[in-house]
Amino acid sequence: MADGGVLVEWENIESRPFPVREYRDRLARVQESMARREISSLVVADPANLYYLTGYNAWSFYTPQCLIVPATGEPQLFMRAMDAQGAHYTAYLSTDLIHGYPEELVHRPDVHPFDWIAEKALEVGVLEDARGSRVAAETDAHFFSARSYLALRDRLQHAELVDSLELVNWVRIVKSPLEQDKMRVAGEIAQTVMQIALDNVEPGRRQCDVVAHIQYAQALGARKLGGDYPAIVPMLPTGETAGTPHLTWSDLPLRKGEATTIELAGVYHRYHVPLARTVSLGKPPKELRRCAGAVTEGLHAALDMLRPGSTGRQVQAAFADTIARYGYVKESRVGYSIGIGYPPDWGERTISLRAEDLTLIQPGMAFHVILGMWMDGWGYELSEPVLVGEDGPERLAPLPQELVVKKK
Amino acid sequence: MADGGVLVEWENIESRPFPVREYRDRLARVQESMARREISSLVVADPANLYYLTGYNAWSFYTPQCLIVPATGEPQLFMRAMDAQGAHYTAYLSTDLIHGYPEELVHRPDVHPFDWIAEKALEVGVLEDARGSRVAAETDAHFFSARSYLALRDRLQHAELVDSLELVNWVRIVKSPLEQDKMRVAGEIAQTVMQIALDNVEPGRRQCDVVAHIQYAQALGARKLGGDYPAIVPMLPTGETAGTPHLTWSDLPLRKGEATTIELAGVYHRYHVPLARTVSLGKPPKELRRCAGAVTEGLHAALDMLRPGSTGRQVQAAFADTIARYGYVKESRVGYSIGIGYPPDWGERTISLRAEDLTLIQPGMAFHVILGMWMDGWGYELSEPVLVGEDGPERLAPLPQELVVKKK
Repeated sequence: MADGGVLVEWENIESRPFPVREYRDRLARVQESMARREISSLVVADPANLYYLTGYNAWSFYTPQCLIVPATGEPQLFMRAMDAQGAHYTAYLSTDLIHGYPEELVHRPDVHPFDWIAEKALEVGVLEDARGSRVAAETDAHFFSARSYLALRDRLQHAELVDSLELVNWVRIVKSPLEQDKMRVAGEIAQTVMQIALDNVEPGRRQCDVVAHIQYAQALGARKLGGDYPAIVPMLPTGETAGTPHLTWSDLPLRKGEATTIELAGVYHRYHVPLARTVSLGKPPKELRRCAGAVTEGLHAALDMLRPGSTGRQVQAAFADTIARYGYVKESRVGYSIGIGYPPDWGERTISLRAEDLTLIQPGMAFHVILGMWMDGWGYELSEPVLVGEDGPERLAPLPQELVVKKK
Repeated sequence: MADGGVLVEWENIESRPFPVREYRDRLARVQESMARREISSLVVADPANLYYLTGYNAWSFYTPQCLIVPATGEPQLFMRAMDAQGAHYTAYLSTDLIHGYPEELVHRPDVHPFDWIAEKALEVGVLEDARGSRVAAETDAHFFSARSYLALRDRLQHAELVDSLELVNWVRIVKSPLEQDKMRVAGEIAQTVMQIALDNVEPGRRQCDVVAHIQYAQALGARKLGGDYPAIVPMLPTGETAGTPHLTWSDLPLRKGEATTIELAGVYHRYHVPLARTVSLGKPPKELRRCAGAVTEGLHAALDMLRPGSTGRQVQAAFADTIARYGYVKESRVGYSIGIGYPPDWGERTISLRAEDLTLIQPGMAFHVILGMWMDGWGYELSEPVLVGEDGPERLAPLPQELVVKKK
């Protein structure tokens, strides 16, 4: 049905966005980190970590699956049989390293796929149930359920089972040059999509109509490069509910006199660049304008501090000190590390820009500096996605950093 | 900024898609089921179950949150402070029953939000750590991590901690008349969107362009009722990869001579109607046509069996026996229960239509009969979403049940 030449292109370019040597390098860094913590096997369940380490990419994370990384040698994939069958379209691993559990284990009260996975992993040797063996699992990953954990624990009678403490996420935090290129494309998409969103926020238009345009543009992408799906749907709390983050849309019309905060992402090959802006339909209330001014000034202070050698604590303080001069306080973090994302989150769950974070910022890290001010009955959001370079932050989606006002 | 009248409309119509008496009835049925199993407290983490029991609806499930249902009395919500603040926009619960944990507990290696939640739940009385107390948790729900489970378990020294066995999911399985109306709207949206998808599959068009049209239409909705976001993004494996389920899209062009399977959903107020069809660009290979014919005949046999009093085992057998006459075998289930959905899955995780399922089918249940044939290098998908009535299935998205062929 398909001619060979084009298939080669699909396999080499599209389904494997990185050359195999990049995956080998990532694996080496994960195994080094495992060695430092004396971990014999690492059970990886976060789809972003699976993608990072193998290229595996499908919407199969709603049933249990994992990659098990041994202290040395090749990692192996364990997933539902129907997904294992085609996993080599995206993962670089050879098919003998990909194992499928039988269909009848799905959604059963009496047996669980992780019973099978633990057994199989012991059999193929990526897990060892011996005294002195130390198995780390991603106990706070989104798709590693308590039942999966309990099944794994029950099978390990001698090995110690510990928390991975987001080991792979921490390896992901510094982006390689090839990853930085993906982020730049994602940034172009984010900027294009946000401009379309801002253009479409008009009085009388339904929230869902604006979302339709956003989602259309997200898939279209930029520069002939197609967009990928975002880990979070577009969020546009409006009017009184703009004081509440994380609300999705309704089919009510936007109204003159109200402000809408828009948060969305551009995505390319699973790399995310999120972006937030606020648009006022009609003349904004004085308090909103005042808040927007303070936040823009605070953003500049935060970006000045976001450079190699600084800490999240310092970035947060730069912002907090600036807005404090205007009488504002923000309790939540002012940003977080970004890169690969899968639903439900585009954050990496590593560095947060907040008082408690003392990690040194390094070149190659990427952050979403997000300044959400959720007030009683109104809100304001402004964000800046950046790559950290030797001399400071590179803006990935350089739109004007102000409240957008539509007066007509 | 907004006049009172319109705000009332927002609060009563949009943000609360059901009257309060519907939530009270759902709670009563959950508490009856808890009583039968002698459960003193039920920890509900699945966002679909939170929505079902309270109306709470926001993209906040990427940080820990739960509803705790006591044996008698009101349930209480526990979530991140920034989300708790506005939870009453969608949940019917009064604000004193909604508790927000401090921001500094998010993404920390040393402390966890569930430490706080367990403590607070004991304090307000929806949990009791006493001998004889039996706490059930949703240990296989997608957003209840192993770490959340361990934090809860560590705080309970005397109470017994057991698996909920999808208690709320099983209560959800029979849809009320108001829920059935939501499903019918979702079905209209699914049908509209699939027609647009089929129209847009053309040689030379990129996969991401087709997805752009699908996502646009999903948000637009039908009959002036806006569409909601789907639990799963559109999937359209094409050409050789059509033999692999769950692959998402790329930016490669569709090609003449290839077949594409499309799986998507129409969504209204979180109720999902999924739908799958296959389209061939150009004359289909004989084997694909033969498979499609057998599957359509098998679908009719399955739908004839899908009526009150039957079991999943019988529905599956009706399909399997029919396609066996053509020499085909399908190893995976032929369908599952549907209703409310949140990422990453639109299935209810209760009844599967397969040999192992002996649950009696009842009026008011809804199913996605999905017949995916994943062959080596090609595939075929056809589905039928239905509501079970007294006399048999009501088709929710009645499109022709055949392979779509575009010859030009």
